[in-house]
Amino acid sequence: MTTVREIRLKSRPTGLPTHDNFETATVELPAPGPGEVQVKNLWMTVDPYMRGRMNDVKSYSPPFQLGEALQGGAIGEVTQSNDPSLKPGDLVNSFFGWRDGFNAPASALQKLDPRGLPPQAFLGAAGMPGLTAYAGLLKIAGLKDGDVVFVSGAAGAVGAMVCQIAKAKGHTVIGSAGGAEKVAWLKSIGVDQVIDYKATPDLNAALAAAAPDGIDVYFDNVGGAHLEAALNAAKPFARFAICGMISIYNATKPEPGPSNLAQIIGKNIRMEGFIVSHHFGMMPAFIADLSKWVAEGKVTWKETVFEGLDKAPDAFIGLFRGENMGKMLVKLG
Amino acid sequence: MTTVREIRLKSRPTGLPTHDNFETATVELPAPGPGEVQVKNLWMTVDPYMRGRMNDVKSYSPPFQLGEALQGGAIGEVTQSNDPSLKPGDLVNSFFGWRDGFNAPASALQKLDPRGLPPQAFLGAAGMPGLTAYAGLLKIAGLKDGDVVFVSGAAGAVGAMVCQIAKAKGHTVIGSAGGAEKVAWLKSIGVDQVIDYKATPDLNAALAAAAPDGIDVYFDNVGGAHLEAALNAAKPFARFAICGMISIYNATKPEPGPSNLAQIIGKNIRMEGFIVSHHFGMMPAFIADLSKWVAEGKVTWKETVFEGLDKAPDAFIGLFRGENMGKMLVKLG
Repeated sequence: MTTVREIRLKSRPTGLPTHDNFETATVELPAPGPGEVQVKNLWMTVDPYMRGRMNDVKSYSPPFQLGEALQGGAIGEVTQSNDPSLKPGDLVNSFFGWRDGFNAPASALQKLDPRGLPPQAFLGAAGMPGLTAYAGLLKIAGLKDGDVVFVSGAAGAVGAMVCQIAKAKGHTVIGSAGGAEKVAWLKSIGVDQVIDYKATPDLNAALAAAAPDGIDVYFDNVGGAHLEAALNAAKPFARFAICGMISIYNATKPEPGPSNLAQIIGKNIRMEGFIVSHHFGMMPAFIADLSKWVAEGKVTWKETVFEGLDKAPDAFIGLFRGENMGKMLVKLG
Repeated sequence: MTTVREIRLKSRPTGLPTHDNFETATVELPAPGPGEVQVKNLWMTVDPYMRGRMNDVKSYSPPFQLGEALQGGAIGEVTQSNDPSLKPGDLVNSFFGWRDGFNAPASALQKLDPRGLPPQAFLGAAGMPGLTAYAGLLKIAGLKDGDVVFVSGAAGAVGAMVCQIAKAKGHTVIGSAGGAEKVAWLKSIGVDQVIDYKATPDLNAALAAAAPDGIDVYFDNVGGAHLEAALNAAKPFARFAICGMISIYNATKPEPGPSNLAQIIGKNIRMEGFIVSHHFGMMPAFIADLSKWVAEGKVTWKETVFEGLDKAPDAFIGLFRGENMGKMLVKLG
């Protein structure tokens, strides 16, 4: 038997989650059964979308259940195998995050070929956040030559990839992020104009100054005032890829939408929401492009790392406080 | 000299327009100059979008100027011609509405072939409102087999055409309109479910009952609570054609957008605003389809007619009070 710990949802958060919403439990893992492997997790991800799964409402992902381990992406190492497809030492990508280790059917895991990248990159730039940026820009927003691109949450895991993919393709990019450190980083990776929204009394004016001729594409991770500013700055036929609205994920009462939404009529704006799981088919193309961009020095990434499973709730809560630059990760094992 | 009257914008409305915002002036028309014709208007249209042009803000159409005649679609008859392309008695479609008559270059007018339809149909079902319905459904919403269609403002000039085009193409159609008379008419032309929003305490519940499996397409003429209900009822990958938001055109302060807008993410909803002038290229296909549908008895229309130029402000104001069934028109001449 192997003893592992896991983080369970103890109670459903109201507003911003607190430590009281989580509990740590100890689980004894038997030897893996036929077709199963045992995995020791090395890295787990926390992502904003998980907040929605903590509510007891129907959504695109089913709600987390009280008293059960939370779920999410993780990179682990096979420690015992009872299946010929995986052997001890193999790295695997799974959805069994929020725990130190687990038994699972080998067929439920994806063997990871790190291709020279650090394994945890496959939870960020080379994983779902990176593909989210790629699919949102290229497919949902239909990025085309000459587009001026505005990105909110630009220093986040998805946002920073949006910035760099757009820059790699030759676009003018305006990013919004909170705080001088994030602004400096975004400028260092080539973002043309960076708005520090926390230091800006008037986001509309700041965006108008950053994009005097308007924007063609808006990649929304934030919603709220950022979406309103983007509508005001949009050129005719602008396309908005709506990826997230982190500004309202912890709202305890309905948050009104932008009061200038009617601008989508006169400006012929297309606004499209999406979740990355419908675009997994783009993964091979994304990885091919990403490898090229990384080799050319056009795409890089940052990680904000919390150490140890016990810190997973801190890492998660920190997402909503903007404590991460780039990908928020928890290092396990 | 011919004496004609025209309606001018006397002051910019705050909220719902009143008679004080309009004034009637008398103008003397000289004989038409070289290349010009003189036209006596027979019909003029009033449309909700004109409200936006009464504000002094930049939009897709420039604002109406104070002290100048208002503009809009009109059907007239040539009374004098100084150009070989038009002769007295010819019907013309123009943008010189809100007046009894005018002189204009023949090149600025479109000669009308009524094809057996009453001429004023070309201000409604066979004109811009009809094309708006056609382009919005087929191109913007990308109507496809099996779609369940929800239409707000369903008894209006555009909405009633949306209902009938969708029915002609075999779809389940749910319409929302205000008042028993409109509801009865929509049922009589085959709309499957009609919501009387004025008699409904909970539009969300009413739409959920009318479309228990959800909606695939929403054609929005209204905005506000209707848009919110449509978001709640939307199936995954629903498409929203945003044509108008009459519920907010007279707002005197910013009206918040729907508080459930974030549903576009999890449901992968595409929401696209449009104005018909970018889709004039579809007119021949629309007229061909419309002729067939009219001949088959699948498309009909209603008119609400005010008599005389002096009544044009009443007709216009009536749009925002829902006083029209089908196309709101002013009969001139």
